[in-house]
Amino acid sequence: MDFTIRAATLEDCKDISRMILELAEHEKVSDQIKITQRDLEQDGFSKNPFFHGIIAEVPEHLKSRDGHTKVGYSLYFYTYSSWKGRAVYMEDLYVMPEFRGKGIGQALMAKVSQLGLAAGCNQLNFTVLDWNKSSLDFYRKQGCWDVTSELGYHCMRCEGDALEHLAQGDL
Amino acid sequence: MDFTIRAATLEDCKDISRMILELAEHEKVSDQIKITQRDLEQDGFSKNPFFHGIIAEVPEHLKSRDGHTKVGYSLYFYTYSSWKGRAVYMEDLYVMPEFRGKGIGQALMAKVSQLGLAAGCNQLNFTVLDWNKSSLDFYRKQGCWDVTSELGYHCMRCEGDALEHLAQGDL
Repeated sequence: MDFTIRAATLEDCKDISRMILELAEHEKVSDQIKITQRDLEQDGFSKNPFFHGIIAEVPEHLKSRDGHTKVGYSLYFYTYSSWKGRAVYMEDLYVMPEFRGKGIGQALMAKVSQLGLAAGCNQLNFTVLDWNKSSLDFYRKQGCWDVTSELGYHCMRCEGDALEHLAQGDL
Repeated sequence: MDFTIRAATLEDCKDISRMILELAEHEKVSDQIKITQRDLEQDGFSKNPFFHGIIAEVPEHLKSRDGHTKVGYSLYFYTYSSWKGRAVYMEDLYVMPEFRGKGIGQALMAKVSQLGLAAGCNQLNFTVLDWNKSSLDFYRKQGCWDVTSELGYHCMRCEGDALEHLAQGDL
């Protein structure tokens, strides 16, 4: 299929925001989304951005049923492992359902990997929901392994009032 | 106990490297450590650093049995959630065994939380090994919750030859 992968710009934030919501609906968590187009513009496209993005785009004649030419995206940022050093983290990888099975997801992931390697990264990391078997199969086919199952790593989080209390050191 | 928490500098990399190894020995993974003092200097203290660090330091008269005054550290960096926005990730939190139980770990974690909140972050994230029950208890007491157990998130990784192949898109 005819598609291109390119770096996201400020003008893509409307479509990224739309696709973040689509992905959240698929993951059954759309009530959790607090991020708006404006947040993405501020956090990804000002000085010292918190993330970077890439977009998968199809030509006008292949646009989606509802008229979209931006049909997939990935958000990523650079992280660090005190064992292995520089790493790249893929926060999201999404392709609109009607464009799946055409190599777009793999091309997005290849691009994030290329960018990571070019920046001296030794690892690509990301998280997957354990019930999302088709995603897990896709990622395993790409040579990825499950750090949680194999090493026992659990993701922990502190947020909201608990984070405020933690910062005050008054627990 | 008399201690201070301060931002890490280039001159701390030797001690951070030492403590990374001590932490890895505790986690039974010291053969996995590829990071040297020089890597930390390059990756954390040049333009566009991959991480930031804080150090816990005691006065000279309270130094460790083997003469160290830098007795704990945390490495952290900023990340992004496409649900919730800006986040801070705590890569390591370590206090030398003979200095535990004195509030140093909590003070380090409070500092990372303060820095995160000041940068507009809504979440503090980190990972814990599931067999490390004392750490899990410590973190739960600080108001943290287990995203892997409660939502089913698994950490996935691609590295080495698999990452090179993924980047080439030739799987």
